[in-house]
Amino acid sequence: MADKVLVTSRFGRSMLGRFAERFALLETAGKPADQVFGAAELADVRALLTMGGQPLGRETFEMLPALGAVICYGTGYDGVDLKAAAERGIVVGNSPGANASAVADLALALLLALMRRVLPADAYVRAGGWSGAKPSPMLKPPRGLTGAKVGVYGIGEIGRKIATRVAGFETEVAYHSRSRHDVPYRYIGDLGELVDWCDVLLVAVRAGPDTENIIDAEMLKRLGPNGVLVNISRGSVIDQPALIAALRDGTIAGAGLDVYAQEPYAPDALAEFPNVVLTPHIGGHTLEAHVAMQDCVIANLAAYFEGRPLPYPVEA
Amino acid sequence: MADKVLVTSRFGRSMLGRFAERFALLETAGKPADQVFGAAELADVRALLTMGGQPLGRETFEMLPALGAVICYGTGYDGVDLKAAAERGIVVGNSPGANASAVADLALALLLALMRRVLPADAYVRAGGWSGAKPSPMLKPPRGLTGAKVGVYGIGEIGRKIATRVAGFETEVAYHSRSRHDVPYRYIGDLGELVDWCDVLLVAVRAGPDTENIIDAEMLKRLGPNGVLVNISRGSVIDQPALIAALRDGTIAGAGLDVYAQEPYAPDALAEFPNVVLTPHIGGHTLEAHVAMQDCVIANLAAYFEGRPLPYPVEA
Repeated sequence: MADKVLVTSRFGRSMLGRFAERFALLETAGKPADQVFGAAELADVRALLTMGGQPLGRETFEMLPALGAVICYGTGYDGVDLKAAAERGIVVGNSPGANASAVADLALALLLALMRRVLPADAYVRAGGWSGAKPSPMLKPPRGLTGAKVGVYGIGEIGRKIATRVAGFETEVAYHSRSRHDVPYRYIGDLGELVDWCDVLLVAVRAGPDTENIIDAEMLKRLGPNGVLVNISRGSVIDQPALIAALRDGTIAGAGLDVYAQEPYAPDALAEFPNVVLTPHIGGHTLEAHVAMQDCVIANLAAYFEGRPLPYPVEA
Repeated sequence: MADKVLVTSRFGRSMLGRFAERFALLETAGKPADQVFGAAELADVRALLTMGGQPLGRETFEMLPALGAVICYGTGYDGVDLKAAAERGIVVGNSPGANASAVADLALALLLALMRRVLPADAYVRAGGWSGAKPSPMLKPPRGLTGAKVGVYGIGEIGRKIATRVAGFETEVAYHSRSRHDVPYRYIGDLGELVDWCDVLLVAVRAGPDTENIIDAEMLKRLGPNGVLVNISRGSVIDQPALIAALRDGTIAGAGLDVYAQEPYAPDALAEFPNVVLTPHIGGHTLEAHVAMQDCVIANLAAYFEGRPLPYPVEA
């Protein structure tokens, strides 16, 4: 019989197909496991598959007496209570870097769409404004990327790939992270100084308790009225109400967001701004990235069920 | 008295401001010059400022007996009848490369927005589809850029800048132009072979009689059902009705267009497709690019009125 894997996040059909070929999947579709399955069914579940950003801790672990492995689909594991897992001897795995290229690509997609006003431009053309020679903010040239000062916050695999890409656009790139890394960009040891310096702030830091709401009202003020912000990391890194206020009163020029404080939920206030680009957490969402992430998940699950160490463990 | 410059294209206020400080501008706002100004007023016009893509030839030249210089704002000069100008001894100038970075940036903006479905994704979030967990094509991961074969058609200044940028996205880049250039990308001597090979075709060729409708129904068929097309060059390079048919019946996967067969006019049929991104010829439309282009225009006009050769002449 195939090994059981409890799936606690909502995944698309195309994502689960390869897992279903090798494992017996028990899907809760986001509901508490004990609302969907009986205790007998859950008693011998040894592995759990989750989106790393979704809360997962003691409450769920207690429903699963045999649980020994939590495998995150993707890079993130910020939703997983690592302490609770360690106490139970549950190993935690992820898919490090498997979607880094796709996420970095989306960061640039958001940045370029925002700075070059691709969304209002497209709407203007489609509505016939261009052919009708209607006045439009489109006629006023925006600030472009050439010569812009770009600050990358977080220089892990995704941050590095973002830096490589954006440097190709004739920009000046600097970064901040807890320590200096071996990358060909200027290191700024203080986040506030990076924000003061840059025109464009790209948030790629790994989310955690130490980064919660670190981009707050004060930081947004320091980014300034010509500054733009792109976040492909986690919504928790930005004080979302402060961001909404900053967009409303022109404290910053605009924002490109793939992640939000509470997903799947982008506040209505954000959706009203013309100077934002909003995507529904699709950073790692490409065919290639999914195949790479699935490879990591399958390798982690196979190793666990065969009694071997996880090839892609989360380093606590 | 300031030297007269006839302005035959429609320019935004912000674009003309710097010229008005130095020259006496006579604006036709796109109308035939003799409908706006009397013959006496036009008699001593020695220089003309135009968007290079707009038709300009004998008919206008005949209204301007003293005309000696046609200065194009931007890189293009495909609308100017160079033969007619040469016969009259009229010199033609442009702003070579001044907007190349901005145009290359927009090519990437269109490509990324198209491939990562940024426009439908933004609409999905704003309309509440994401928070309502509504089914959406967004849930099906698209093909991303990682590992994609990217064909750049035309390797002038813009094509080179596009190639540099897109190579940073972990793609494989090849190019076609009339001859091999000293660039670190694979040269494919036949356009059709480039199109057969690539997943993404970026059109950056200089428009002219030899490239008219060169991307035709046959080429689009060779690009294929997974192929995407981005054009930031001129609409004339693509057989637009063939492109519309190819988008309608799935002959190609999608298109990002900044330029059209007849501007300012994007066909209604295009505006109905979800798999296109349409911008109103804003490739060179950034503050930095405008300043650089204006510098070229001013240098060309100043030289001409002082009897010096144009610093930025069009090489016929």
